[in-house]
Amino acid sequence: MSVTGLPSRVEVVNVGLERFETAVRDQGAPAVGVDWRIPAGGDLDAVAALARLLGPASGRVDAANAEVISRLDRGVPMLQGVETAGDVVGGLGDGMILHCGPGIAWAEMCDPLRRSVRAAVVAEGWAAHTEAAGQMVQAGEIRLEPANEHCTVVPMATAIGPSAPVYVVSVDAGGTTAYSSLNQGSGAVAWFGVDSDAAIERLRFLRDALGPALAQALERAGPVDVFSLAAQGIAMGDDVHMRVQATTNLLLRDLLPHLVRSSSARIAEVADFLSTNHLMFLNIVMAGARAVAEWASEVPDSSIVTTMARNGTTYGIRLAGRPERWFIADAPPVQDALYYPGQGPDTSAGDIGDSAVLELVGLGGPAAANSPAVAGFLGGRMADAMAVTAAMGRICAGTSSRFRLPVLDNAGTPLGVDVRRVVEASITPAVNTGILHASDGSGQVGAGVAHAPAECFLEALLDLDQRLAED
Amino acid sequence: MSVTGLPSRVEVVNVGLERFETAVRDQGAPAVGVDWRIPAGGDLDAVAALARLLGPASGRVDAANAEVISRLDRGVPMLQGVETAGDVVGGLGDGMILHCGPGIAWAEMCDPLRRSVRAAVVAEGWAAHTEAAGQMVQAGEIRLEPANEHCTVVPMATAIGPSAPVYVVSVDAGGTTAYSSLNQGSGAVAWFGVDSDAAIERLRFLRDALGPALAQALERAGPVDVFSLAAQGIAMGDDVHMRVQATTNLLLRDLLPHLVRSSSARIAEVADFLSTNHLMFLNIVMAGARAVAEWASEVPDSSIVTTMARNGTTYGIRLAGRPERWFIADAPPVQDALYYPGQGPDTSAGDIGDSAVLELVGLGGPAAANSPAVAGFLGGRMADAMAVTAAMGRICAGTSSRFRLPVLDNAGTPLGVDVRRVVEASITPAVNTGILHASDGSGQVGAGVAHAPAECFLEALLDLDQRLAED
Repeated sequence: MSVTGLPSRVEVVNVGLERFETAVRDQGAPAVGVDWRIPAGGDLDAVAALARLLGPASGRVDAANAEVISRLDRGVPMLQGVETAGDVVGGLGDGMILHCGPGIAWAEMCDPLRRSVRAAVVAEGWAAHTEAAGQMVQAGEIRLEPANEHCTVVPMATAIGPSAPVYVVSVDAGGTTAYSSLNQGSGAVAWFGVDSDAAIERLRFLRDALGPALAQALERAGPVDVFSLAAQGIAMGDDVHMRVQATTNLLLRDLLPHLVRSSSARIAEVADFLSTNHLMFLNIVMAGARAVAEWASEVPDSSIVTTMARNGTTYGIRLAGRPERWFIADAPPVQDALYYPGQGPDTSAGDIGDSAVLELVGLGGPAAANSPAVAGFLGGRMADAMAVTAAMGRICAGTSSRFRLPVLDNAGTPLGVDVRRVVEASITPAVNTGILHASDGSGQVGAGVAHAPAECFLEALLDLDQRLAED
Repeated sequence: MSVTGLPSRVEVVNVGLERFETAVRDQGAPAVGVDWRIPAGGDLDAVAALARLLGPASGRVDAANAEVISRLDRGVPMLQGVETAGDVVGGLGDGMILHCGPGIAWAEMCDPLRRSVRAAVVAEGWAAHTEAAGQMVQAGEIRLEPANEHCTVVPMATAIGPSAPVYVVSVDAGGTTAYSSLNQGSGAVAWFGVDSDAAIERLRFLRDALGPALAQALERAGPVDVFSLAAQGIAMGDDVHMRVQATTNLLLRDLLPHLVRSSSARIAEVADFLSTNHLMFLNIVMAGARAVAEWASEVPDSSIVTTMARNGTTYGIRLAGRPERWFIADAPPVQDALYYPGQGPDTSAGDIGDSAVLELVGLGGPAAANSPAVAGFLGGRMADAMAVTAAMGRICAGTSSRFRLPVLDNAGTPLGVDVRRVVEASITPAVNTGILHASDGSGQVGAGVAHAPAECFLEALLDLDQRLAED
């Protein structure tokens, strides 16, 4: 433990006993726990793979990672507009539902995701009610595919069919395009695992009113630089994952002239919805993150994670250069949670949703340090939010040149989760997320921090080691 | 100089040589310069008055100040709506123009304020063009009064006549109401000292289009808690003076449903204007500050400043309990300035506007610490913004319980500028402000920091000392 003297930076680096680190952090000063651990938890296969990937093979991997990080950092995702999913999302045909997370059979799906799928089937008009919808899926009449395999990302338990409106976000430099659903707002909503009539009606509202109104407004506004708004939002206290309110408001202000001029007969309803939905930008920035991640994914030999998604049952990641292979583990419970009254771990579903893609591009956890909202969630002190960013810094191979943290003298956010660092440090990405009821369809029951399972990162590491050895 | 040991707070307190403080602040760590100076600069009258006001008379003054600070802190200013100034502002009759700052004769007015007055006279329809308007004022046909003496505050060089729309903000607990003009936006605008046709047309747009549309929207929205929005804005990086963008956006999102439903034929123009005016909330929060300050002003025997305003020629303050008496000094030049190309001190008017009322209620400088925008203006480091807040803390007698600074572990912003502390520490409030051209009517030429002149605080101190002695 050392306190460097003046005039060098006044901060604390603590190796070992966590109590000292906590004491410093309690005072609001920056402190980074180095807490030395046995690399890879002492797993001998992992240690051997790490020795190669950080030793003889490191030049090759580092070069690949530099290109991956450059793409994640330089790609400029532009929101082009809102379209009907079936018209633009490749491979999304009639009778198909896209869902969050890795691919999963109906029988294995958690209750909230099943409810969301049934609600989507009814909203598509394929079934008259959710019971019939469930029977159709059970009978194999509905095809279920992971949204991620269609360049699409959906938050929490979202499921969409071909009639759903989607944001279209493209990265010119990479020639990639990604999609995301429109945010369904709060309350009794399918993306929280509710399949009530009101939740289904919300899906129809998105399709019939919100989607067309936003499509017209965005067409008139012209393409929107998604990450430029996100960068401004960070300086305004958004981590741009758990909290996207400032960024949402920036976009709404830009769209105001077009909403006021709307030809939609339902624009008043649309304005009411937008005025009370703090999460509008979440889905947009997820599509932006996916669009740059798709470009970065094309680089071979990399140890950088370019997909991270959960379906409530399993947690999956993919590496750049290996898009065909998911590394899967059980979805973890959400920890450090705050629950609604009467709720708790026993009534909670597992970690769910594709929004963790944000943590791969320098947003969310990497941007927590400047977010009073994240700090508030963690107990109120900015030092706690800074610790989240610091932990991401230990497992990332680069920093963002566009997402900057004012409270850290405009340091770039950590960027590019490196499985080598994850395994070596035994730290997996932490994602702030909502918690859904495990079984009764009542929706959100709390919020907490989900720590990614270590196993999928270890598998990805071993797979990379093996691939490089075979070359 | 001392560095306190762990586990106490890691920070630096520096007494004396500024070089150490600067070295620490260069590293982004909190540092507060205590730089001991001779109290009141060694002025013997001041030292004697201070000795009484901090000694035998301190109990009486402190009790008064506690009530003043309580009112500044507890008053809840509610934006009631938009009305026509002549209908609601007491004493504002036909042929009268209200202007920023202390009262001043036309002959002494700076060029930008003269231009703004002329533009207002033309917009009122009292003259056909600015030349005729100038002649009318010169001939004494137009009565000029300080807005502050009509419970009204106007930013920069704003001047308004009875047809201008004003925000109406009231504090129930105090029974006080204050008013402010609508923000004129950027470009060729009268509040920046421009009297072109476009600037006059902007005033008519405010009266004929923006005012009525906002009046209708606010009537439908219901009263708006001005300081609640401001508190949220601080957590989103606004100092709520130099930068009010986040707060403006929060209000716009709340008003969106009502703007979309507007019956105004000019709502599209109004939306275009609102969408590009980041300063909308400035005037609203100024009226809020004035409304609580009016309540606080009713308390006698206090050393707390409840008016602080400039007209480009003079700088004036008033103390609580002494509303009839302005303490006046020359308006200072704006220092630490960034100028537009070709501009500089020689082409700059003096410090101007009523917005400094914000610094009296815990906003602006007191809230700078959490504002990346203020930090950016001062060179980019949050430590520089924190130093602004720290300096205000040295001359304020309390802290806000509602305006809290996330980067300082939610400490309240400094509240209640105490002339005793100002004189003792030889520190006057610093206000970030725009700079207007001194003579050619081209509008804004830069921005910088205006330090209030010490003389008016000293005069106020001596006056208070004398009043208490006479009792």
